Amino acid sequence: MARCGRHRYMQGDFMKDVERNAPKVEARTVKGCQDLLPEDMIPRKKVVRAIEDVFERYGFLPIETPALEHLETLLGAGGEETNKELFRLESPEGDPIALRFDMTVPFARLLAQYPDKLKTPFRRYACGPVWRADKPGPGRFRQFTQFDIDAAGSESAAVDAEIIAIMAEVMQAVGIGDFVVLVNNRKVVDALLYGHNVRCPARHKHVLRVIDKLAKVGIENVRLELGEGRMDESGDPIPGVKLDKETIDGLLSFLAIQADTRHGIVEAMRAALPPGEQTDAAMAEMDELASNLDALGVDEKHAVFAPSLARGLDYYTGPVFETILPNAPEFGSVMGGGRYNQLVARFLEEPIPCTGMSVGLDRLMAALRYLGVVPEEKTIVEALVMTLGNVPVSEAMRVAAELRGNGICAEVYFGAKRSLKAQLSHADRFGIPVAVILGEDELAQGMVSVKDLMAGKQQRADISDHDTYRKAGKATQVTVPNTILIDTVRNLLEHDRGQSE
Amino acid sequence: MARCGRHRYMQGDFMKDVERNAPKVEARTVKGCQDLLPEDMIPRKKVVRAIEDVFERYGFLPIETPALEHLETLLGAGGEETNKELFRLESPEGDPIALRFDMTVPFARLLAQYPDKLKTPFRRYACGPVWRADKPGPGRFRQFTQFDIDAAGSESAAVDAEIIAIMAEVMQAVGIGDFVVLVNNRKVVDALLYGHNVRCPARHKHVLRVIDKLAKVGIENVRLELGEGRMDESGDPIPGVKLDKETIDGLLSFLAIQADTRHGIVEAMRAALPPGEQTDAAMAEMDELASNLDALGVDEKHAVFAPSLARGLDYYTGPVFETILPNAPEFGSVMGGGRYNQLVARFLEEPIPCTGMSVGLDRLMAALRYLGVVPEEKTIVEALVMTLGNVPVSEAMRVAAELRGNGICAEVYFGAKRSLKAQLSHADRFGIPVAVILGEDELAQGMVSVKDLMAGKQQRADISDHDTYRKAGKATQVTVPNTILIDTVRNLLEHDRGQSE
Repeated sequence: MARCGRHRYMQGDFMKDVERNAPKVEARTVKGCQDLLPEDMIPRKKVVRAIEDVFERYGFLPIETPALEHLETLLGAGGEETNKELFRLESPEGDPIALRFDMTVPFARLLAQYPDKLKTPFRRYACGPVWRADKPGPGRFRQFTQFDIDAAGSESAAVDAEIIAIMAEVMQAVGIGDFVVLVNNRKVVDALLYGHNVRCPARHKHVLRVIDKLAKVGIENVRLELGEGRMDESGDPIPGVKLDKETIDGLLSFLAIQADTRHGIVEAMRAALPPGEQTDAAMAEMDELASNLDALGVDEKHAVFAPSLARGLDYYTGPVFETILPNAPEFGSVMGGGRYNQLVARFLEEPIPCTGMSVGLDRLMAALRYLGVVPEEKTIVEALVMTLGNVPVSEAMRVAAELRGNGICAEVYFGAKRSLKAQLSHADRFGIPVAVILGEDELAQGMVSVKDLMAGKQQRADISDHDTYRKAGKATQVTVPNTILIDTVRNLLEHDRGQSE
Repeated sequence: MARCGRHRYMQGDFMKDVERNAPKVEARTVKGCQDLLPEDMIPRKKVVRAIEDVFERYGFLPIETPALEHLETLLGAGGEETNKELFRLESPEGDPIALRFDMTVPFARLLAQYPDKLKTPFRRYACGPVWRADKPGPGRFRQFTQFDIDAAGSESAAVDAEIIAIMAEVMQAVGIGDFVVLVNNRKVVDALLYGHNVRCPARHKHVLRVIDKLAKVGIENVRLELGEGRMDESGDPIPGVKLDKETIDGLLSFLAIQADTRHGIVEAMRAALPPGEQTDAAMAEMDELASNLDALGVDEKHAVFAPSLARGLDYYTGPVFETILPNAPEFGSVMGGGRYNQLVARFLEEPIPCTGMSVGLDRLMAALRYLGVVPEEKTIVEALVMTLGNVPVSEAMRVAAELRGNGICAEVYFGAKRSLKAQLSHADRFGIPVAVILGEDELAQGMVSVKDLMAGKQQRADISDHDTYRKAGKATQVTVPNTILIDTVRNLLEHDRGQSE
């Protein structure tokens, strides 16, 4: 039986009748999932390729893993919340399996499963759907796409610097100039809290949770929550961490550290942290990060050390990264990541140090659209071949074959309505730039008409008078000998491209 | 919470201990699924792009639908067998959903769901995983990839001709010169059987099943099965269709029709079929197919009308297509399709005529590998940057940034072992063509060493003597000023590319 197989439909006339008379199935998308139509996919594919090019230039290799994983591979890898959000099912053998909820756990599995083929150091990229059965909302899907890179086998912060450099290059590659990759380090925060005698894990976590609210609730509310607590807007009490004033002042002044350069911030952090082994280790790592970001040519404004960045700090073991778009803050982080040296230890005795980051492709596309960075495109078709009167369709085929043979994307019009108007409106609906029109008379003379639909559109944009409108449309049409058809179409396409750039 | 989010791992030190001490999870792939490592993915991505280019040149637009569909969307669309093979699960709301088993049913759903945005004529391509919970075997997966095109909105056989032309171009684009797209037509077979008074649907199907075995069991066994039946090799009886001798002779002589051209086969078929309306309609369609295949420039040897092709004939409503590779027959059909005018009627009162085909990507990749058409490539990295002695890693970063800025894919070596040998063996394992080596002395003089690893490999292939081996290796290494590093690397890469072509 064919695996490419399409041989299971419409079992003869019997099935035809069944289909005709059966009650209709409602055509609807599963909740939280999205259908990507050409207008979504065309810019999306360009963005994916641009990102892929960056990843490959940094030496990351493509990998793909299946959507389904053994439940035990996934369970616990992401904590309680993720356990609940798994789409679970059963294999035909009755084994519990589930749809992957991210790309990182499968990557860790691969490292453990193919120690020879994926000998470290190893770096890979992977782009694909992941599933989480949580509550969908605007821009929040149950199936969404992650585009990840991860580097395994090195503890060096220089590799983290490369990840940050890639994040900056990705932003530029997709056309976003105004962005900041915020960088913090779990080790810095540990040294800070340890130095201030916040050593119990539960309290440590509570402090991080409060700091993470800084941008949302403001410094004064954070101060209250680090101390005795406060009332929220509805009057409900928010319990505090109950730190003393001196500790709170110490923490808040650390979070407020700013400087013009990454090295400057490291110096200020070093001065503010209590001396000791932990501080030395954390500062050495931040120094290494800063030096390597400089060596990689990452602009100071594009990667900023941010002592107040607390997101993910309870999960990562070293540097953490997060991207913000100052012109589209409501989209939150479109990329994020960090160092995780323990995940592979789920599978192997010897843990493999890893660092990486994930692009949230759906969110990035939404942000690009919001920022107007992605041009609207509904088609990749460059020329629509139309026939008028009794011109046989095989003539259109011949012309289309010639266009395609010369690298021009050509569609032959095959709609039920065959009027010139219907054919032009099909081209218009998708924004196809050029029409190649085959008429009987022209054909007999070895001629063909070529119409610049983009220019026609522009010229007629301000015309309301019918006759002038028709004339303006005609002005963008030329009738040329077959022999120069390709050149004529190419010139128009180049001209249109020039206009839109 | 971040959708790009990776913030769920290793909840602090507590989690670290859990990971360290917890029993290890066995790293294994779900049965019937496959992990695609770089050596699989690199050629695969090239093949996908080559196919995509062909699809786009014919004016097909990209679309993506979710992996999950409502169960009712899928149930019955593929017949009983497919119903049983669905991976079923439940949405968080308790709705029955399932993983899609092909790309055609979701396409039909889209056409019904977005009548305005996807106004016909509409043609799309889609590439993605599909799932079938059947028995996996060699080259037969439970998750596999289909790469489909479908054109909706026209009954014209000219569109079927375009699909066939695309199949031929796809084969050539991926480097297969020796292939045949076999073409038959449900209407021809209907006319044949109707003319021979085989009119009961069950018998009709039985005949098709027997004809489908032709290549496998040979003409004499088919003759027996069309008649009284026969014994199989184990001695079990195979019941026959019980046609009379005259009918059998008529059918078999029709199946044996051959000619040098597609038009020639149509003429021979017309002569052999009983006269009547059905024959006229079938022949008109085959004529149109033949004329348009000629107009599209499809070589006679690449698309052949095959009256004996019976696969899929009980599912399709018009032309059917199937590809065979004479040099790799064991891979069966790597592409297949046909016209299906009834599928959208599951969702809509008014059916939308469709035709299309599907590339079985996994099977195609296996065939390409078998045919030796795809060069083995384990990396896209062009230059590995290595450091010796106490050269700081930031120097490697600076050099890598320069290489990347000039469009060269560069990896900085970050393995635990830092000897020259370990670094070169990493390059060797992946087949990285060029090493850029930063030594302390060279660095002080503004110099850098560049080593041609491909040439080194070739030169040393036949040397067993240790000293000669070392010397030969040295001969492929040059030390150049930093200023001409990029040119030096580029020259080597171009030279290597020239060698491998």
